[in-house]
Amino acid sequence: MPAKDFFHDVVKHALIKDNWIITDDPLYIRVEAVQMYIDLGAEKLLGAIKKDQKIAVEIKSFMQESNITEFYQALGQFLSHRHALEIEEPDRELYLAVPADIYESFFKQTFVQELVQLHQLKMLIYRAETEELEKWIP
Amino acid sequence: MPAKDFFHDVVKHALIKDNWIITDDPLYIRVEAVQMYIDLGAEKLLGAIKKDQKIAVEIKSFMQESNITEFYQALGQFLSHRHALEIEEPDRELYLAVPADIYESFFKQTFVQELVQLHQLKMLIYRAETEELEKWIP
Repeated sequence: MPAKDFFHDVVKHALIKDNWIITDDPLYIRVEAVQMYIDLGAEKLLGAIKKDQKIAVEIKSFMQESNITEFYQALGQFLSHRHALEIEEPDRELYLAVPADIYESFFKQTFVQELVQLHQLKMLIYRAETEELEKWIP
Repeated sequence: MPAKDFFHDVVKHALIKDNWIITDDPLYIRVEAVQMYIDLGAEKLLGAIKKDQKIAVEIKSFMQESNITEFYQALGQFLSHRHALEIEEPDRELYLAVPADIYESFFKQTFVQELVQLHQLKMLIYRAETEELEKWIP
């Protein structure tokens, strides 16, 4: 199983344990552009609901060689997905899911924190070992 | 020569033809974080001046298989670099350089244009064939 599918399943199981209902796996977002539909990337989003809350989750493993390179990709993708959701499904909130160890070692650095706050990224921290959600930010 | 170095040289030559002085090749931006310096990615920026204007140029070829994937990377990288420049060198303006054919076929789509405007990306359109600058946006 490719690493990205492994982490996809980890977050899915963690959401189910936390009483979320997975409604879309994958969740497709399509936006009409001038001439064509843009398929918003190969990475799969999860769609889930719990009571009256509706979320989309972008799952990142940060298993690539460079954290900063994967962060660039995650940030660009998150902002594009969020804009698409604002158009297509404004009641669904987007979260970026990252493993707890990466959150501690990479995301807590001042420069990265500044970017997270500047762009108001919502994050979901998960533990891959136990398939559990650790923290929602904010 | 790897494609990314080819396009790097194309934009460099185009800037020189347009009377810019290349001051930094590559331009390094380093930001102090809590525990470490973050090396802001492997792709090289160019630094240039002309009269009292000082710019940094992030060069993209859009030669990857998926334009949207390369756009995610370019957007995340641009916003991170711009934030780092605001801290380290606030009088230097960042531009994203893309080939004219990619600008016409990809960037002119409504959804992409909305993201460019939302995040106030400055762009520099170049012609790889003639090594010339075509347009500065805005």
